Amino acid sequence: MKLALIGVGLIGGSFAKALRVAGKVTSVVGFDVSDGALKRALDSGVIDEHAASAGEAVSDADLVVLSTPVGRVAAVLAEIAPRLSERVVVTDVGSSKLSAVTDAQMQLAGAAGRFVPGHPIAGSEQSGVENASETLFHDRLFISTPWSGTNDGALRFVEALWTSVGCRVERMSAEEHDRIFASVSHLPHLLAFTLLAQIKGAPDADRRVRVAGAGLRDFTRIANSNIEMWAEIFVANRQSIVEELSAYRQRLEQLQLVIESGNVGDVEEHLR
Amino acid sequence: MKLALIGVGLIGGSFAKALRVAGKVTSVVGFDVSDGALKRALDSGVIDEHAASAGEAVSDADLVVLSTPVGRVAAVLAEIAPRLSERVVVTDVGSSKLSAVTDAQMQLAGAAGRFVPGHPIAGSEQSGVENASETLFHDRLFISTPWSGTNDGALRFVEALWTSVGCRVERMSAEEHDRIFASVSHLPHLLAFTLLAQIKGAPDADRRVRVAGAGLRDFTRIANSNIEMWAEIFVANRQSIVEELSAYRQRLEQLQLVIESGNVGDVEEHLR
Repeated sequence: MKLALIGVGLIGGSFAKALRVAGKVTSVVGFDVSDGALKRALDSGVIDEHAASAGEAVSDADLVVLSTPVGRVAAVLAEIAPRLSERVVVTDVGSSKLSAVTDAQMQLAGAAGRFVPGHPIAGSEQSGVENASETLFHDRLFISTPWSGTNDGALRFVEALWTSVGCRVERMSAEEHDRIFASVSHLPHLLAFTLLAQIKGAPDADRRVRVAGAGLRDFTRIANSNIEMWAEIFVANRQSIVEELSAYRQRLEQLQLVIESGNVGDVEEHLR
Repeated sequence: MKLALIGVGLIGGSFAKALRVAGKVTSVVGFDVSDGALKRALDSGVIDEHAASAGEAVSDADLVVLSTPVGRVAAVLAEIAPRLSERVVVTDVGSSKLSAVTDAQMQLAGAAGRFVPGHPIAGSEQSGVENASETLFHDRLFISTPWSGTNDGALRFVEALWTSVGCRVERMSAEEHDRIFASVSHLPHLLAFTLLAQIKGAPDADRRVRVAGAGLRDFTRIANSNIEMWAEIFVANRQSIVEELSAYRQRLEQLQLVIESGNVGDVEEHLR
């Protein structure tokens, strides 16, 4: 089986490596807007050849994996749509699923049924194809978010691939996925980025960071994630994020009032 | 030297153990409002004897260490004030320092100069005297926050004790301490508690927690801290916390507007 990998980073690179180890793919062609990433993917053996464009990469592929930032998905789908074979299955790994479903419906027309929206819940503080690992998905969760038009064979095919690289598979609607991940993933990242921006904007920022203890370390770890990638996720999933963020801001407002009132019992109750 | 330990938990217990190992104290008398904690402190050898009250504990002590929740400091100081010898040095380990200085000024009268407000930047996900460790403070920072009336000998005595258990020592004003720790410690805890409260309040809370990835794990670790203890810190340091929290809420409000506008570049700029 020939895999076309569009976007060669940590997730896509690890999936390609793991599929090869599992005996599921025999050759991988890659494309990335970054020549450097493409070269590192070739040098590390994650891909066997590189294409000059996403369209060229998919032209004789059996499986297309999109692992670009989520904001690029629509444009890539538009570019590859005319080059897809009739049998090809397309899937993605993005953190925002309603946007991916909408992108596929709008850009792939008749082939949209063979697009399987997916999200492996795995990652690392590291990024980049040079850190790709065939064991990244061991014991992790893969979430598929089919819509009513998703081809059942394509869905089961993609889910079986993720199972073969070590994932448990769970299905949910794109709406549910986006609502859940807005609250357990996107909001925490947004809060951590914002806290670090506030601290770094203080006149005594260096001293603050230097004396800080474990509480800040956890936030720093999250906030070390790629801001560009996350900004795209926040925009792609803005409907659910704005909902969670509004509720959160309301909680903070109430909490501030309770803290100002000085009653420890009320503060405690509010935090539970 | 005889140490009176008021409040036997992780921090106070570890300090007592470490001081004994360093040869600085020969006997430790403890008091705690929790009989269970007091018994565990005795059983584990952290204290040699227990007193029936804070006042009794300090009556023939050379050094008094307050390691109660910060909301208890004023009441304990009021209780022990009449029982303090003329040579005793009193210090605390709380996360809120202006409140401790004010408490000492109001409750200790003439002895306030021998109260050294301090804050070791150490902790653990664990709590309780049964987890006390003489190595907890190795390579950690101890911050002293003397005020104009602090006795210089008492200050240097307490700082030397913390140095003897492995700490680097840094001095700053209580105001600066509280402003810095509101931003690098108190606010992160407050944000994590609030996020977890929001997630646990969702109708599908169990599913959310089950599918969540690493982003939530870091928040969960912080939010596993003792809510009761933190509620007291938030109230004790409410002036600085409300200032940081107001600025943070304003950032979130602006960020939400930028996300709603859908411009990825603007979101990215806002997060940096």
